[in-house]
Formats: sequence, C-alpha cells, structure tokens
Amino acid sequence: MPTAASVSYPSAAIDSLIAAVQFDAQGLVPAIAQQHDTGEVLMMAWMDRDAIVETMRTGRACYWSRSRQAPWRKGDASGHIQTLVDLRVDCDGDTLLVLVDQTGVACHTGQHNCFFRAIRGGALETITPVMIDMEKIGKDKA
Amino acid sequence: MPTAASVSYPSAAIDSLIAAVQFDAQGLVPAIAQQHDTGEVLMMAWMDRDAIVETMRTGRACYWSRSRQAPWRKGDASGHIQTLVDLRVDCDGDTLLVLVDQTGVACHTGQHNCFFRAIRGGALETITPVMIDMEKIGKDKA
Repeated sequence: MPTAASVSYPSAAIDSLIAAVQFDAQGLVPAIAQQHDTGEVLMMAWMDRDAIVETMRTGRACYWSRSRQAPWRKGDASGHIQTLVDLRVDCDGDTLLVLVDQTGVACHTGQHNCFFRAIRGGALETITPVMIDMEKIGKDKA
Repeated sequence: MPTAASVSYPSAAIDSLIAAVQFDAQGLVPAIAQQHDTGEVLMMAWMDRDAIVETMRTGRACYWSRSRQAPWRKGDASGHIQTLVDLRVDCDGDTLLVLVDQTGVACHTGQHNCFFRAIRGGALETITPVMIDMEKIGKDKA
C-alpha cells in the first residue's frame, strides 16, 4: 500500500513546470521514476505534455507508451500504481525525475524495478528476484 | 574524492552487456547516473556503443554528447569524474542505470545533481544550492 500522501497541482503550477520542459521531436521527455524514500530507481519511461498534466493533476504517474502510441496510466491493469510525491526538472529541461510511492512492483516482469540485469561472473545475469507472478494479476502493457 | 574502487570489465563481458542493449535510431541509449551509496539520481545522459565500451573498459563514465555530436568523457574539463561501480540494463534493454561514485558535482551548473527544479509555492523553483562555482574550474561541456 502507498504510504505517502499524493500531491496534486493547480493549473498554474502545471503550466509553470511544462514551460521548463524541452520535449523531443516526438513531443516526449524521458521520465525517471524513483521510489521517494529508498532512492531505488524503478524505471524509465516517457511523458508527453498530456501525461505530465495528468500526473500532476491526479497525483498518479501517467506516461506515454511508445509501443502502443497511447496514454499509459501505470497500474490500470495490475493495480501497481505510482503515487506522485514530487516532480523535478533537470538543468536542461530535457529529463524529469518523478519521485513516487510504488504500489506493488514497477516492472512488467514482476521484478520490483526494471534494472535487474548486470554483469556477474563475466556475463549478463538477473541479479534480483521476481517478486510477483504478473500473469496472475494482469500485466501492465507499457 | 571517490571512495569506491572502480570496476573494469573484460571484452567478453562488455559484449554480453551490449548484446542486451536496444539502441535507438540514432544509435543511442539513455543512461541514468546514480550515486551508488546514497541513491541520489545525478543526471541522465546518452551513450552510444563506444561510450559503453569506454565506460566498462576504463571504469569511468563516458557518454555521447548530442549537442556536440562527440564522445564526452565526463570530468575531462572539471575533474568531476564518475567512477563506475556497477552497470545495469533494464527489462527492455532500452535504458541503462550507471551506478557511480561522483567526484565533485554532476551538473554543469555546479549543483550536485541536475534535478534541482521543482514546484514550490505554486511555481518552479531551484530547491538545492549551487555547490561549486563552475566558472572557476572549467565547465564540462555536455
């Protein structure tokens, strides 16, 4: 269960943040989701302007799915939502850091975060356990 | 000063990691740099194949500068290098998480990390102090 109170922002604040964002040629900006209290980097996804508005208005992380070319309200299928805690813009405005409280797991594989592969013993290995069998609860489609 | 011992990898391990990476149409992959012990997300930059090889071979983070269209050995101008601690590949192979030990500061502005702007009091504010006057030491050109 989320432990952090979600935040939501008035329109003027949302406009203020979006004015600082440099969207790429596809109208997207990379968004790094980080667990607000442990510092765990959960995943990286992309937001368009509407995803930023939806995230800041509702207090729940929403992305743009490049594979589906559609809005992606994370957790709609799995219940593994990300409650918004804070939203940071980098120096150049071309990356967002989304501090969240993750319910369940962040990764569609059932791993807690997406960065579970690293070199161990000279080869690429899975270094963390699968926490949840996602087939049983309905995968989120990124 | 860096406190972590840097790691470097043999060619076979580098090949193993690169085989899992999905480069974009420009031959690049986003790389999130995170301070290995505190969890602080320092910056996001891009790596091409050669930058990954150089990072893993030398134990020091190297990127591809999109603005200069050239390799970027971070810290060459400022001394603010990133010593490699671990390198993680995400589920889809389209993002890297680079665990580093940051010498000095990560951001060309002199902030410790690049994500220093957030909504406070309804408007976008700088929420962390400038640590170092970068004019005095030579800026890193991203």
